[in-house]
Amino acid sequence: MAISALLTDLYQLTMLQVYFERGMNEKAVFEFFVRRLPEQRNFLIAGGLEQVVEYLEDLHFSSDELDWLADCGRFHRRFVGSLAGLHFTGGVDAMPEGTPFFADEPILRVVAPLREAQLIETRLVNLLQFQSMIAAKAARVRLAAPGSLLVDFGLRRAHGAEAGLLSARASYLGGFDGTATVEAGLRWGVPLFGTMAHSFVQTHASENAAFADFARSFPLANTLLIDTYDSEAAAHGVVALARQLAAEGIAIQGVRIDSGNLGEQARRVRAILDSGGLSGVRIFASGNLDEYAVQALVAGGAPIYGFGVGTRMNTSADQPYLDCAYKLQEYAGLPCRKRSAGKATWPGRKQVWRSYDSRGRMFGDRLGLLAEACPGTPLLQPVMRGGRRVAHLPTLSASRAYAQAQLLTLPSGMWHLGPAELYPVEVSAALRQLAEEVDRRTGAGGQASAAATDSRAPA
Amino acid sequence: MAISALLTDLYQLTMLQVYFERGMNEKAVFEFFVRRLPEQRNFLIAGGLEQVVEYLEDLHFSSDELDWLADCGRFHRRFVGSLAGLHFTGGVDAMPEGTPFFADEPILRVVAPLREAQLIETRLVNLLQFQSMIAAKAARVRLAAPGSLLVDFGLRRAHGAEAGLLSARASYLGGFDGTATVEAGLRWGVPLFGTMAHSFVQTHASENAAFADFARSFPLANTLLIDTYDSEAAAHGVVALARQLAAEGIAIQGVRIDSGNLGEQARRVRAILDSGGLSGVRIFASGNLDEYAVQALVAGGAPIYGFGVGTRMNTSADQPYLDCAYKLQEYAGLPCRKRSAGKATWPGRKQVWRSYDSRGRMFGDRLGLLAEACPGTPLLQPVMRGGRRVAHLPTLSASRAYAQAQLLTLPSGMWHLGPAELYPVEVSAALRQLAEEVDRRTGAGGQASAAATDSRAPA
Repeated sequence: MAISALLTDLYQLTMLQVYFERGMNEKAVFEFFVRRLPEQRNFLIAGGLEQVVEYLEDLHFSSDELDWLADCGRFHRRFVGSLAGLHFTGGVDAMPEGTPFFADEPILRVVAPLREAQLIETRLVNLLQFQSMIAAKAARVRLAAPGSLLVDFGLRRAHGAEAGLLSARASYLGGFDGTATVEAGLRWGVPLFGTMAHSFVQTHASENAAFADFARSFPLANTLLIDTYDSEAAAHGVVALARQLAAEGIAIQGVRIDSGNLGEQARRVRAILDSGGLSGVRIFASGNLDEYAVQALVAGGAPIYGFGVGTRMNTSADQPYLDCAYKLQEYAGLPCRKRSAGKATWPGRKQVWRSYDSRGRMFGDRLGLLAEACPGTPLLQPVMRGGRRVAHLPTLSASRAYAQAQLLTLPSGMWHLGPAELYPVEVSAALRQLAEEVDRRTGAGGQASAAATDSRAPA
Repeated sequence: MAISALLTDLYQLTMLQVYFERGMNEKAVFEFFVRRLPEQRNFLIAGGLEQVVEYLEDLHFSSDELDWLADCGRFHRRFVGSLAGLHFTGGVDAMPEGTPFFADEPILRVVAPLREAQLIETRLVNLLQFQSMIAAKAARVRLAAPGSLLVDFGLRRAHGAEAGLLSARASYLGGFDGTATVEAGLRWGVPLFGTMAHSFVQTHASENAAFADFARSFPLANTLLIDTYDSEAAAHGVVALARQLAAEGIAIQGVRIDSGNLGEQARRVRAILDSGGLSGVRIFASGNLDEYAVQALVAGGAPIYGFGVGTRMNTSADQPYLDCAYKLQEYAGLPCRKRSAGKATWPGRKQVWRSYDSRGRMFGDRLGLLAEACPGTPLLQPVMRGGRRVAHLPTLSASRAYAQAQLLTLPSGMWHLGPAELYPVEVSAALRQLAEEVDRRTGAGGQASAAATDSRAPA
C-alpha cells in the first residue's frame, strides 16, 4: 500500500512551514492512546503496527507532490523545497500487535525531530485506530464462539479498499480463522474461505444443476448456498445430489444458510441432512452476524459449524470509531500536556507495566514514566531507531497466536461480552507529580502564571 | 487508486472457474440497490460512480497475481490462464452522482458477459455503498447548517486511507465546502481548509508566541486554536496579539474551539473578541460534531461561522453501513430474482422514473422495466458501453452543484433531520407481473413446479 505523504491533514503542512521558518525541529515525543474504552468493549487489541512501520520507512514526497505543493499558492517555495529530503529518522516503541490494552495506555510512542513526528500524526491515528478496533471486535466474536470456524466476509461493506484489506488482517489477528478477501491471502497469507453467491444458483436451470457444477469443479472444497429459494427444499435436493455425486467419488462438504432465522433453519437442515446420511456435511451460517448474534446461536445449540461474519465486524458497527489521539508529550526536553475540557492528557514519555497473578492472569497495569522502574512487564518495546526497524516484526500468524494467548490471560470476567469490572490501570505517583509540575509551568495560556492549576487526572 | 483484481471475494473466483469450465458466459444483468433506507435517513445520495468507472476501465490481473493464483493450489491452471485476458467489456447505466435515491431503486446497472459482471461485484458494492452513505450524511449536515462553512476533518478516524480520501470526496459531493485532507485537493480539487493542532501551541513558550508565529507565516489564512489551556484566556490573548500584528499589517482571520460546550464557549469568546474590536474574526468549531450537534448549535444561535465535522460523518457513525446489494436480475435473456427470506428482489432490467410537481418538487418515483415507458424523468443514464465510457463524467464540482440543486427538489419534509413521510416509490404493474412469472418458472429449488409462488413485494 503505497501511501502519499499528502495523505495528511492540511494543518500538518502549515505547522511544518512555521516550524521550518522558525528553525524549530527539536526532539518531540508523541504517544498514541485511547482516551476512553467504548461502553461495549472491555478491552482493545493493539493492531496496525506493521503498517505504521511500512509507512514510516517509505515516507517521502514525490516530485509531483512537491510541484503541486509549490504551485497550490499556499506555501512558501523554500519550505516546499525543504520537504524534498524529508524522511522519517526517528524512533518508535510500541506494544506488540495482539496486546490487549486499556484507556490512557499509550500503545505507541514516537521520538523524532518535531517536523517528522508531526507530519505523520494523521496516518498513524488512521492506521492504529482501525486495526485496534477491528481486532478487538473480532476477538469478541472469537470469545463468543471459541470452537467455531470464523471467517471474515465483510470486504464489500467495509469502508473502501484499505478498510476491507486491513479488516481481513485485523480480524485474523483478533482470532478469526480466515477471510474471503483474496488479496489478504496474497499479502499476508491469511487463509481463504468462500462458498458461492445466489447469482450462481440463478444462472443455472436448477439449484441442483448449480450445486453439481460447483462440486465437480471443486470436489474437495464445496460449500453450497441453499437459501436462494427455500433452504429445506434445497437440503432435500442436496441429499439426492450427494448420492449421484458419490458415484463419481465426490463428497459434498458443506452448505451455507444466509437468511431467515439461522438457528431454526440450521436445525431443520441438519435433520434433513442427517436423515439423508449426510451427517458429515457441515452447516455454515452468514447474514447480519456479530458477536451477540453468534453468541445467541452458540448458546442455543444451533448445529452450525462455522460463521461468516461481515459488515458488522468490518465496520465495528456498534462502535465505528475510538476516542483516540496522538498527542505531544514532550518537546525539546520539556514534558507537556493538553488540558482542554474532557481531553486532558498525561505528560512525558510513558511506559505501561502489566502484572500477572500466580495463575498467569493479568491483574493490573501501572502507567508511569519511562524512567521509572515500576513492577511488572513493560509492554512498549523498541520497534524503530534512526528510521529503521530494530528487528523483524513478527509474522501475522505469530501475532495472532500471541493475541490468542493474551486473551487467555484476561481476567475471566472479560471473556464475556457484557460489561466487566473495570480493569485497574494505576497512574504512578511520579506521573501525577509531573502533571502538576507541567500545569504550574504552563499555567493559563501556556505562560508561567500564579493561576490555579488543574491537577486532576485526565477525565 | 490502482486496485488489484484480487480485491474481491474468493467465491467470485471459484464461481468463475465453474463458469469457465462449463462454458457459461452469456450476457448477465446485475443491479446495485439499497434494500431499506436506514431509520435515520430520509434519502441517500448516489456516489462513487467515477471510481467504479475507473476500476472497470483498469480491471485486469497482473502476471504476479496470475502466478499466485496458479500456485495457491485452489484453481485449475487452464482457468487461471483464461483470466490473463480478462477485461471489462460490458455496459453500465447509472444515476448521476449526486442524485437522491430511495429503497429498491437501482442506482447502477451492469450488462456484461457473466464472468466479468460477477467478478466485479465486491468492489462495486464496496465503492457505491461507502460514497452514497457518506454523501447522504454530509447532505444532512448541510441541511442542518445551510449557511455555514462545513469542512471535513475526519481522515484520521476514517477506516483506512481510501475511506479518508473518499469521504473527503463524498462529503464535498454532499454539500461540504472542503476538507482538511490534502491528497483530496490534489486528486479532485476539493478545496482545502486547516487550522493548527494543540501540539503546535505546546511546542511554543506561550500560546501567543505560537499564534504570532503562525500568523506571520500565514498572514492571509490563519485560524488559531484557542482551547489548549483555557479558551477565554486565549481569546483575551488574541485581542492583545491582534493589536501587535496590526502594526505589521497582519490580521487574524479566525479562532477554533475544539472542546467543551461549543455553543457556550463560542458566545463567551465572541463577546471577548467583539469588545476587543475583533468582530471580523470568525469562530470555527470542531469536536464530536454531526448533523444533530450542528443543528443544535445553529438553532441555539451560537456565533459559529464554520464547523469542522470529522469522525461521526466519515464513519457515518449512527449508521455505518447500508443494507445494499448487487444482484443478478437477468441471465442469458431470462429474468431472475432471489426469494430468500427478507431479501427478495425485483427481477429484470429496471429503470427509475421521477416525477416533479409544478414547483419542481419531487413527488414520486416509478420503478419499472426498462422496456416500459413510464411517465417522469428516467434516472439511470448510459455511462459505459463496450467497456469504455460513453461520455466524460461530470467534474466533482459539477456533481456537487447538481446534488445541491437536487436537495432543493426534495419534498420539504426531508429538509429536516427527523423521519419524514416515506417518499412514494411505486412498482409498475409490468414489473409485478414479471416477478410472478419468474416465481412460477423457478418454483421451489429453482425448478418448474406447481408449488405456491411468493408473489409478494420484496420486504
